[in-house]
Amino acid sequence: MAMVCLSDFEAYAKKYLPKIAWDYFAAGADDCTTRDENILAYKRIRFRPRMLRDVSVMDIKTKILGSEISVPIGIAPTGFHQLAWPDGEKSTARAARAMNTCYIASTYSTCTLEEISAAAPGGLRWFQLYIHRNRAASQQLVQRAEALGFQGLVLTADLPYTGKRRDDVRNGFRLPPHMKVKNLERAFEVCKMSLLDPSVTWNDIYWLRSLTHLPIIVKGILTREDAELAVKHGVQGIIVSNHGGRQLDEGPATIDALVEVVEAVRGRVEVYVDGGIRKGSDVLKALALGAKCVFIGRPALWGLAYKGEEGLQDVLRILQEEFRLSMALAG
Amino acid sequence: MAMVCLSDFEAYAKKYLPKIAWDYFAAGADDCTTRDENILAYKRIRFRPRMLRDVSVMDIKTKILGSEISVPIGIAPTGFHQLAWPDGEKSTARAARAMNTCYIASTYSTCTLEEISAAAPGGLRWFQLYIHRNRAASQQLVQRAEALGFQGLVLTADLPYTGKRRDDVRNGFRLPPHMKVKNLERAFEVCKMSLLDPSVTWNDIYWLRSLTHLPIIVKGILTREDAELAVKHGVQGIIVSNHGGRQLDEGPATIDALVEVVEAVRGRVEVYVDGGIRKGSDVLKALALGAKCVFIGRPALWGLAYKGEEGLQDVLRILQEEFRLSMALAG
Amino acid sequence: MAMVCLSDFEAYAKKYLPKIAWDYFAAGADDCTTRDENILAYKRIRFRPRMLRDVSVMDIKTKILGSEISVPIGIAPTGFHQLAWPDGEKSTARAARAMNTCYIASTYSTCTLEEISAAAPGGLRWFQLYIHRNRAASQQLVQRAEALGFQGLVLTADLPYTGKRRDDVRNGFRLPPHMKVKNLERAFEVCKMSLLDPSVTWNDIYWLRSLTHLPIIVKGILTREDAELAVKHGVQGIIVSNHGGRQLDEGPATIDALVEVVEAVRGRVEVYVDGGIRKGSDVLKALALGAKCVFIGRPALWGLAYKGEEGLQDVLRILQEEFRLSMALAG
Amino acid sequence: MAMVCLSDFEAYAKKYLPKIAWDYFAAGADDCTTRDENILAYKRIRFRPRMLRDVSVMDIKTKILGSEISVPIGIAPTGFHQLAWPDGEKSTARAARAMNTCYIASTYSTCTLEEISAAAPGGLRWFQLYIHRNRAASQQLVQRAEALGFQGLVLTADLPYTGKRRDDVRNGFRLPPHMKVKNLERAFEVCKMSLLDPSVTWNDIYWLRSLTHLPIIVKGILTREDAELAVKHGVQGIIVSNHGGRQLDEGPATIDALVEVVEAVRGRVEVYVDGGIRKGSDVLKALALGAKCVFIGRPALWGLAYKGEEGLQDVLRILQEEFRLSMALAG
Repeated sequence: MAMVCLSDFEAYAKKYLPKIAWDYFAAGADDCTTRDENILAYKRIRFRPRMLRDVSVMDIKTKILGSEISVPIGIAPTGFHQLAWPDGEKSTARAARAMNTCYIASTYSTCTLEEISAAAPGGLRWFQLYIHRNRAASQQLVQRAEALGFQGLVLTADLPYTGKRRDDVRNGFRLPPHMKVKNLERAFEVCKMSLLDPSVTWNDIYWLRSLTHLPIIVKGILTREDAELAVKHGVQGIIVSNHGGRQLDEGPATIDALVEVVEAVRGRVEVYVDGGIRKGSDVLKALALGAKCVFIGRPALWGLAYKGEEGLQDVLRILQEEFRLSMALAG
Repeated sequence: MAMVCLSDFEAYAKKYLPKIAWDYFAAGADDCTTRDENILAYKRIRFRPRMLRDVSVMDIKTKILGSEISVPIGIAPTGFHQLAWPDGEKSTARAARAMNTCYIASTYSTCTLEEISAAAPGGLRWFQLYIHRNRAASQQLVQRAEALGFQGLVLTADLPYTGKRRDDVRNGFRLPPHMKVKNLERAFEVCKMSLLDPSVTWNDIYWLRSLTHLPIIVKGILTREDAELAVKHGVQGIIVSNHGGRQLDEGPATIDALVEVVEAVRGRVEVYVDGGIRKGSDVLKALALGAKCVFIGRPALWGLAYKGEEGLQDVLRILQEEFRLSMALAG
Repeated sequence: MAMVCLSDFEAYAKKYLPKIAWDYFAAGADDCTTRDENILAYKRIRFRPRMLRDVSVMDIKTKILGSEISVPIGIAPTGFHQLAWPDGEKSTARAARAMNTCYIASTYSTCTLEEISAAAPGGLRWFQLYIHRNRAASQQLVQRAEALGFQGLVLTADLPYTGKRRDDVRNGFRLPPHMKVKNLERAFEVCKMSLLDPSVTWNDIYWLRSLTHLPIIVKGILTREDAELAVKHGVQGIIVSNHGGRQLDEGPATIDALVEVVEAVRGRVEVYVDGGIRKGSDVLKALALGAKCVFIGRPALWGLAYKGEEGLQDVLRILQEEFRLSMALAG
Repeated sequence: MAMVCLSDFEAYAKKYLPKIAWDYFAAGADDCTTRDENILAYKRIRFRPRMLRDVSVMDIKTKILGSEISVPIGIAPTGFHQLAWPDGEKSTARAARAMNTCYIASTYSTCTLEEISAAAPGGLRWFQLYIHRNRAASQQLVQRAEALGFQGLVLTADLPYTGKRRDDVRNGFRLPPHMKVKNLERAFEVCKMSLLDPSVTWNDIYWLRSLTHLPIIVKGILTREDAELAVKHGVQGIIVSNHGGRQLDEGPATIDALVEVVEAVRGRVEVYVDGGIRKGSDVLKALALGAKCVFIGRPALWGLAYKGEEGLQDVLRILQEEFRLSMALAG
């Protein structure tokens, strides 16, 4: 079977992943309305293509927080990559480095930050953080990440509690015994999300700032009011995200929220977006609407499920080619 | 099968109830447009979720007409609970008391008001009334309810005649011989809805007022004009309702009508809503749009059909947990 | 099988009529968009139901052009009733008289005007006219109708040529040998629609006026401009119609066009509507939007196909009961 | 099977063409959204039909760039007609001449321009050009076309690179060995679209102007801005086109873009449209919205696939009859 577009990787993953893993990655909250809206909202946005422009040379490189990446498509933080491919996040790190883009490693990785760093030295990586009730554990994670050369700290703001993903409840989802949330091995047990601290507020940005010199990016912003608060609290970047539609169902699609956030931010910090990117033209739309870079979540996992590091590179390469072609055809 | 969300109870009830009972509970008028719109209208309403707020403690208690309930989700009046579970309305009363919420018992109960009261002494209950041509019978019912400790009188305003529910006509729906509309045993026969008085008008509120000290809640209001009339005629509460889409088809969804009613009422009386509540986020939407409390109809029957009192508690508990989670995730 | 609503008659007719007859009656032009829009447009119109009004007595009688009918639901002109029932238009005439409503007999009847008159003496009937190239033949028809006691002349304005109904072309539709367009037996042959005169204009209203004392109703008006012209040319009534979606596809639904026509006419002549009436609530919507009476086309044929005169009465009776119930429930 | 409307030809072609050929003709870019939108957008446009106008005589002849055609429906440029019928573009040329309309021959024809000319001497034909990196080859083509009596030069502006048509990638689409892109036999190989010049700009209109006296028509314009540029650079005509939805997906439907282009052009050059024409009423809509003529792409190929020259004439004849009937019924 030829892998022609991202849906082909999705079909492959659905067919070959264990049901419990597929369901976990595919899950959306409640009725999955927002998960699906993320995709539908892109389809509602239409191009006004311009003709007869010289598109023989196109530059798709960009910089995020000062680091150059070869294409404005990074890897969003998602958990448990070993569910998709034995080498887990090590493969992800290698693929991202090979494609010269940014990989945001999740707190809920099945490899340690040290393993991830060692797998692809020199790659551009950010670290995604959940703040736990045990603040010392979170502090230690942040400082490990900084010491290992991660170049950004991504605070997930939309998970005070875990959303209700019906299939995971039905499946009684948990990691198989041979996998671990290694970054937290001593401090936590797997999936005890209730260890997350639901009392986190904007003031905790100041606490994080006191722990690290890394730029802080807040992930999960969907409104102009929160975008304004993020800027006011001194973050360096915002990822417009609804956690892939896995948290509150029936909120806005991310591409729709992006417009409002970009407008509120007025260039004071960089704005990124994840959720619903399935084609190169989606990337072009997000950039045209003000995103500095997009991040892909599920498609990266499908790539891993297909052929590990190589499969993820395939996904990134296809998306990049489609993005480049869309730019040319849109003039 | 795990019961994860209300649709699971619906699927169970559809599978295990006798067809004639399922059809009766599921029925909508004519093309069932309004029945289905009640649900679809909730889906069209979108959240603007806010982040990084302290959601470690949330208070979901409320008061309706002065009585505290532990969650703003009550049981709407529906008829013939023995069709769903042998103990009928006695189970409903027990479940409502166990969950510390309000149960509106229907005139068309298959248990007497006395049996309902005895089943769950001390529970918060309101009594739902149809006004019959035989006014003395209605008067006697109201006074029995008051004497038994019911704390509110709900006048159904949208049933001068019974709506046309095609499946009931096809099935020749009637209660099985061993069930009775016990509250009316002597005065009426089952399903002789033509005994209802189609000449009831707003002035009959004054007549009801003369019969009882109970607060009067009018159920079935869908327009600002009627909301204004309800306030003017001195009711204490309004239930925005279209009778689950069982009366006039192609009127508004209740959540849409709620907005207009709340605006008209301007806080002078309490406003509630029923119809189409299927998820905790629906409850949050209704409250955000001005309802003091919601009432569930069919989902309560599905719970009864699943496991009687226990099943109905499951339904209420799931809805409550989802409501609490939605509040947290919406900030 | 219980006949509960008009769709039941439709299903019966689809099952028991010869395919060529079903297809002919069901046909819409081209993609059948307008045929289906006639129905969908009714569904888009929503009621604002009012409560607690005395609906114990309701008067649904009306007058059209001075003649009283017991319910504002007449029989629209459709051709070839013998395709639906052996007695053809004679049964239609009897059913209409029994229900005390108006029947518009088509030029393309399979019974003569004389047979129709004799079948139901004293019934209220109008005669529908196509103007043929052979004007003398048309003149003779008009004068026969007047002599036979028809009380209105309905000029069909939307058929200068016959619309393209794909199934009829595929089926090679023609009347079976034992049926005839009897009114035209000598002057024309069956289905030679090309004998219709495509050069008819508004001035021909004056010509018709010179032939008869009957009130003239023009059928097929869909715009305010044409409504204005109709009034200006002295007609007594307008039937807003798109010929059941059988002529120009992708024009407006009749219930939508009704609004614009009623507004333009400002009460100067009576306005009626046909197309898409499937429930009593549709009748209520049409009347609420300004129609004096509605006419049903296909549903009448389904009734005939079910049980001839008796079946058509069933259809009319169901529609009348639904209409009455809708009025009561809408307050 | 009777061929009643264009969909019948489509069904035939889908059934009888080799899959690889059907897929190639049917292909749209990416998700085929724009390909399908071309059709859906026509359906959204509604007529306001006028009645009682004399439609006994209708003139559907028109002139494009000074040449009279018997109906405003021409043949859009599409490639590889031998995939549909052995005689390929020779049959197309004969059918177009027989119907007295204009045929735009593609650069990517499987017959030479000389063969096309010889097949139907005297027919009205335009030549469609892609500009290649090898400018001399393009120049030679233009001059051959002019010498052979082609009367217009159509520059395709929307293909700096070929759109991503997934099925073609999956099928590994290429011409069978016995077919050739004959016009380019020496200079190019089949499907090496990368030989097209992506650096072409509006200034190349001046270069084309220097090569030929033929009127220049630019094809692929979708915005008012580009329409303005086209006029400014001195073209004689504009074809509003999105390449049948085969280039940039999720741009506008052509009938929607037509409105904006016609408005911008204000009659200074002729405007045509292709894409999504499936019924005679679509032609009427395009003309009513300002197009001087429409061009059909896939339907012409379906006609060829059905019966070659004769099948294409059938398609044109049906479309013409439907167009004429729509005009009459719309008044």
